[in-house]
Amino acid sequence: MEEETLDILIRGGIVLTISKDKDVIDNGEIGIRDGRIEFVRAIGTDLHRPEAKEIINAENMLVMPGLVNTHTHLPMIYFRGLADDLPLNEWLVNHIFPAEARFVNSEFCRNGANLAIAEMILSGTTTFCDAYFYPESIAQAAIESKMRGVICAGFADFPAPGNPDPARNAEVARAFLDTWTGFSSLITPALFCHAPYTCAPETFRDIKDIARSKGALFMTHLAETKWEVEDIKNRYGDTPVRLLSKLGILDEKTVAVHCNWLDDEEISIMADCGAKVSHNPESSMKLAAGVAPVPAMLEKGITVGLGTDGCASNNDLDLIKEMGTAAKIHKAVTLDPTVMDARTVLELATIEGAKVLGMEKEIGSIEKGKRADILLIDLNKPHLTPLYNPYSHVVYSASGADVTTSIIDGKVVMRNRNLTTIDINAAVNWGRVHISRKREM
Amino acid sequence: MEEETLDILIRGGIVLTISKDKDVIDNGEIGIRDGRIEFVRAIGTDLHRPEAKEIINAENMLVMPGLVNTHTHLPMIYFRGLADDLPLNEWLVNHIFPAEARFVNSEFCRNGANLAIAEMILSGTTTFCDAYFYPESIAQAAIESKMRGVICAGFADFPAPGNPDPARNAEVARAFLDTWTGFSSLITPALFCHAPYTCAPETFRDIKDIARSKGALFMTHLAETKWEVEDIKNRYGDTPVRLLSKLGILDEKTVAVHCNWLDDEEISIMADCGAKVSHNPESSMKLAAGVAPVPAMLEKGITVGLGTDGCASNNDLDLIKEMGTAAKIHKAVTLDPTVMDARTVLELATIEGAKVLGMEKEIGSIEKGKRADILLIDLNKPHLTPLYNPYSHVVYSASGADVTTSIIDGKVVMRNRNLTTIDINAAVNWGRVHISRKREM
Repeated sequence: MEEETLDILIRGGIVLTISKDKDVIDNGEIGIRDGRIEFVRAIGTDLHRPEAKEIINAENMLVMPGLVNTHTHLPMIYFRGLADDLPLNEWLVNHIFPAEARFVNSEFCRNGANLAIAEMILSGTTTFCDAYFYPESIAQAAIESKMRGVICAGFADFPAPGNPDPARNAEVARAFLDTWTGFSSLITPALFCHAPYTCAPETFRDIKDIARSKGALFMTHLAETKWEVEDIKNRYGDTPVRLLSKLGILDEKTVAVHCNWLDDEEISIMADCGAKVSHNPESSMKLAAGVAPVPAMLEKGITVGLGTDGCASNNDLDLIKEMGTAAKIHKAVTLDPTVMDARTVLELATIEGAKVLGMEKEIGSIEKGKRADILLIDLNKPHLTPLYNPYSHVVYSASGADVTTSIIDGKVVMRNRNLTTIDINAAVNWGRVHISRKREM
Repeated sequence: MEEETLDILIRGGIVLTISKDKDVIDNGEIGIRDGRIEFVRAIGTDLHRPEAKEIINAENMLVMPGLVNTHTHLPMIYFRGLADDLPLNEWLVNHIFPAEARFVNSEFCRNGANLAIAEMILSGTTTFCDAYFYPESIAQAAIESKMRGVICAGFADFPAPGNPDPARNAEVARAFLDTWTGFSSLITPALFCHAPYTCAPETFRDIKDIARSKGALFMTHLAETKWEVEDIKNRYGDTPVRLLSKLGILDEKTVAVHCNWLDDEEISIMADCGAKVSHNPESSMKLAAGVAPVPAMLEKGITVGLGTDGCASNNDLDLIKEMGTAAKIHKAVTLDPTVMDARTVLELATIEGAKVLGMEKEIGSIEKGKRADILLIDLNKPHLTPLYNPYSHVVYSASGADVTTSIIDGKVVMRNRNLTTIDINAAVNWGRVHISRKREM
């Protein structure tokens, strides 16, 4: 196999493999062919070096797996900073919903996804999991820009942009999975019920049944706010987690987003059924929604990934900054500086995120046979000097702007900060022209 | 006056003045001469445009006051990531103290300060307030790199690098103020007692008396951890704030750093005596030291500035990221999304920080007659698109890497991300050569 010409050879650098058996390779080399990692090893381990179409010099760089953002609403990038520092209900009802009613259509979603993918690649994300309107537009944007995405079709019990008749939800869900399953190696279709307060138990059952029958991932916002917990208890006599558990919604292929308000028993319920959690600390902090008990979840064995949520509540898609926040907020809340250490947090943003999305055999670490989703971070900067602990550097000192080169599925999508698959000016300008600028909305 | 040639004319851009009367100027121009702001106005307000030696095009940029970092230990940049995710005592006693004993000397401090100043300029800081060993080395580094700094000589009741005899503290303090007062327009000398648990009441009284007699700023770590509060109560029968209040240490020229553990009465004590607070949220989160009750402090009228603390506990000097954390952590802790709104936080990092340091007549806002400490942030990036609210953009979406050009005291110290006063390779390399690299310390 190794006799054939490689597509890419990454030479030098400190490789954070995030694999079980290999830890850090101090002067590594990685061979990539046909979108996959052919080898990862220390330079000198194998003196035979195959030819490569492109050699990437990673000297004085960190080389690590691409980041997995387990929860986004990409087109909401156009609502970034539209309405901040407001009570959640006022934010949603008086600002976000009216803006969505006025602006959201398939073109908005296609262009918004394009801009968001540019931002994500520029900050190190190589896989995202999105839930928004017009999911086919988002899938198309991902395919065009060579980005890996789990794309959810979203459902609620009221008419929504692109999905005007909730009575047709099941039909739409089936058609979406049928269309996109196997369509592109970069796209995995999935289904999303918005939340227990916007979807009736029957909606959850119907959509989850369809996901289950097709082997697809199912996702929902869950226990985001105290208000939600009270509302669901008033309506159904159960907390959101217990309600979904009794409905049979929670299993290994269900991803619950947020989970800020879980008691110990609910953590055990989630752990026992194998449900996954997408943790979005910055969004929940900014909305004052709560702080998820992630250290307790990890202790119980729940698989937790990181997410940024949409730009209306974060206000960015920078998963490296999100790691720093995730590492620090739980220390502050528990008053224990040893929880959420840098390595744990980096795993949440890579291999654990891959597990959340059911993709850990394909992505999330730098290992022979996996898809080549890889980042290079330039260490030759004042704020990354000196270097004692590479995990700590990524989590506590870096930001998205430090990623210099990014590879998805064996293709270089950013080289020395230049995007190769997206026209960045076009992406930036569409919103300027079509969405009212500054204080006008 | 305006007939004379300007040194710099900044033209175009959205100017966040952070002044009382002027808010945001949408298409502004700023004239700079002899280190000061000669005018700030909307383009077209005055049709006479004076000649300028340099014109900076700020089209599609945010123009704002330089950031004021009210608490740093610059040379600790060489301990960035040396020991993370550890209990505070283990971190300090087993890692930081031995590293300081082994490495710290005047050359270490001079070079460390140089590297730290590079990092600060690259992330938008134009004034810092430092407390570490060998303060004269730090002052020299600041003067050389044309950075504005309040430099504290630090004191404790045990021998320290550069200050081996605590019996001579008063003498050293007086000599430091005498040497550096009026030495350079960029440097303001000040005095620092490390903390109530390392300085006896007499030390506080002596050093504060000297500061008072010379009109200098006095600074101390205060009420950082629960442990400190208990320790001081056990030793002196009072909490740290009450102890210092009774000792007469707290007044308008005292800056208390951290203040994580203040009860309501202590907040009132601080407010009544006019003492200032330096809030360092990321450091206190990472060390699990606590979360300062800043919204309550602001409500009582306490002047609060932002700080990063040293790189051993943060692990960076990026005050823009610190703003994002400051805006979010208090929302999470109070469960109120309206506290610490973006504009308030941006004021903490500029004009309020200037007030903390007693420099609000000279810096902290873009106003006629003030020293010209000014930043430009390029908006032409995916993660800063679109723009509704410039305050929100800086606080929630930007990071230090978005600052493109920086002016201190009327001099361009960074132009299009290139430092003009610091040899960045020399700054990065000194630590590589002289401080053990990676996992060896």
